[in-house]
Amino acid sequence: MNVRTGRKTLSCRTVSFDEPTNTVYLIEQRLLPHHFEIVAARTYRETARAIRDMVVRGAGAIGATAAFGLAQGLRSFRGRSPGEFRQHTRKVFQTLKEARPTAVDPFNAMKAMLAATRSGRTVEAKKALALAAAIQFAERDEADCRAIGRNGAPLIREGMCILTHCNAGALAFVDHGSATAPLYAAKDQGRKFFVFCDETRPRCQGATLTAWELTQQGIPHAIIADNAAGHLMQRGEIDLVIVGSDRVLGRTGEVANKIGTYTKAVLAHRHGIPFYVAIPFSTIDWRLRNGRQIPIEERDPGEVLGAWGIRTDGRRDYLRIANPRSAARNPGFDVTPPELITGIITPRGIFKPSELWPRRTELR
Amino acid sequence: MNVRTGRKTLSCRTVSFDEPTNTVYLIEQRLLPHHFEIVAARTYRETARAIRDMVVRGAGAIGATAAFGLAQGLRSFRGRSPGEFRQHTRKVFQTLKEARPTAVDPFNAMKAMLAATRSGRTVEAKKALALAAAIQFAERDEADCRAIGRNGAPLIREGMCILTHCNAGALAFVDHGSATAPLYAAKDQGRKFFVFCDETRPRCQGATLTAWELTQQGIPHAIIADNAAGHLMQRGEIDLVIVGSDRVLGRTGEVANKIGTYTKAVLAHRHGIPFYVAIPFSTIDWRLRNGRQIPIEERDPGEVLGAWGIRTDGRRDYLRIANPRSAARNPGFDVTPPELITGIITPRGIFKPSELWPRRTELR
Repeated sequence: MNVRTGRKTLSCRTVSFDEPTNTVYLIEQRLLPHHFEIVAARTYRETARAIRDMVVRGAGAIGATAAFGLAQGLRSFRGRSPGEFRQHTRKVFQTLKEARPTAVDPFNAMKAMLAATRSGRTVEAKKALALAAAIQFAERDEADCRAIGRNGAPLIREGMCILTHCNAGALAFVDHGSATAPLYAAKDQGRKFFVFCDETRPRCQGATLTAWELTQQGIPHAIIADNAAGHLMQRGEIDLVIVGSDRVLGRTGEVANKIGTYTKAVLAHRHGIPFYVAIPFSTIDWRLRNGRQIPIEERDPGEVLGAWGIRTDGRRDYLRIANPRSAARNPGFDVTPPELITGIITPRGIFKPSELWPRRTELR
Repeated sequence: MNVRTGRKTLSCRTVSFDEPTNTVYLIEQRLLPHHFEIVAARTYRETARAIRDMVVRGAGAIGATAAFGLAQGLRSFRGRSPGEFRQHTRKVFQTLKEARPTAVDPFNAMKAMLAATRSGRTVEAKKALALAAAIQFAERDEADCRAIGRNGAPLIREGMCILTHCNAGALAFVDHGSATAPLYAAKDQGRKFFVFCDETRPRCQGATLTAWELTQQGIPHAIIADNAAGHLMQRGEIDLVIVGSDRVLGRTGEVANKIGTYTKAVLAHRHGIPFYVAIPFSTIDWRLRNGRQIPIEERDPGEVLGAWGIRTDGRRDYLRIANPRSAARNPGFDVTPPELITGIITPRGIFKPSELWPRRTELR
């Protein structure tokens, strides 16, 4: 993605790896949108800490970070004993896995890498295979997002207003994003359009991360309260909705995503506005039988009772908004049924939710 | 309403008047929910300033405040000359009217009061008539809200979960509120139930004012992000929705209310959940022909880009949440069509939206 720093425009990725110095570079997402910084994780322990402390977030981005972290860790091994290397590998794997124990992407990425290193006969060969596998993982993530962009871009016609929810953007992947990829591709193709970013309470990823990305890419947009989308649809001001997803059920076509996605889908359906979900194939869960099996995380009530941001004196702080003696409920995700979804934009084309399961062998 | 201050419970109104000292007392709403204070406005100019500076807000509450302010101003006149009194009256009226020029309630309340004073022959008689009219206005506001409570309470059955949006509470009227009145009445009748308060971004009146009121009345509740209502309805956790309104069109039954109300109505309709609107008759606009004629105020983008609250060091501040270079759209209200509304709870019973116009002579 492009990032404007002062007068210069920098081309960068959310996650990248520098081979000579064995360093993982990450956009420090906790400081966004108020401050842009790239941080260097010089050891696998620093990389694990960056994952744990949310310097980096988003399925694709933490998958790639863990993959590079594993390669980084293996490459830091000094010695030739295969036994000691095996022990070291286990330690690195475990450290990175425990950095975000509930996430599935880092685990899957690292598992696949370990399988790839098995064919290496020497420690040095295994190191090289691990690095190649990590690079491949990141490149596939980027290529998938680029393909989502290519496939979704024709939906975005000149002059349209597109609504998006939360951040399924370049910051959540190695680059381009899922829900944002069609926007970036359409922009590259020279089309002019406007984006409404749902604020996305309680964590406000739309108002912070997506709005920041759109500013960097020079795409005209406005942030709206989550309450405003229905009104704007009613007034004919929204032509298309594109969101990402945390998990799409291959069997049913149900879509789990950030809380509020379901509401936007219901509203879009009422107004006959197309509602698309953009995902790489790693987001599809082929196992679960229906949406009620998806665990809905109940998050910290403090997120609803207040907000993080910048005070009038310029310092970052948490502000208590709500009545001090009131409790909050904070479900983090919701599930949108397939009948509300116009199509699922994937790296291999746009599918109806019901088309996933019949094509499972081909898409898996 | 009851207000818990330390160990004591105080019974108080949002607006009240002390005759011997000619003083208007107001709950200082700008400090809520973090601090409870009653402020005294000792002159009509102080009362006008309290209206202008939002110490008091809400249609019924500012209507009663202006009415008491007018009586207070007239009573402060020292002299017997009817001509000078007339001049003084104009000045007081004008000062109070200009405190919130777009609001219709203060204007209507004061107009009616002036009509009532006309029968007074002396300055003293006019003063007494003005006071009587102001007291009557406040008492009718309170009686109307109490009647809304009485009529709406049977909808709230033991064990129910009720969703409400924004603050159409005791703080918006002299007491009891409109949307909250059925809750308070059901609680007085000994029923147990649970309330979900929509946070109501961008101004968060649900998380601040409604949550504060419910805490004071001892009603179990939880604040939710506006994004969460759809998910909770989908999971069967919401049985009933009650909201207030800024304007109900008598001709069509359309309901203008705080932004996000329409979204909740669409969701309730999808899930077969009853959706009620509670109002006094002064909220009904018999003039406009349809909802598109209702002006939708576009408010300060700063409300969407950040929030007000209490910093970790205990000071009140505005926090910038959103990306610094992004714009925001901030429509303050939306319009809910009659087909999504189960009933309109009024002081004279519950009506279907379509029943208002045929009964216009009786209800006006």
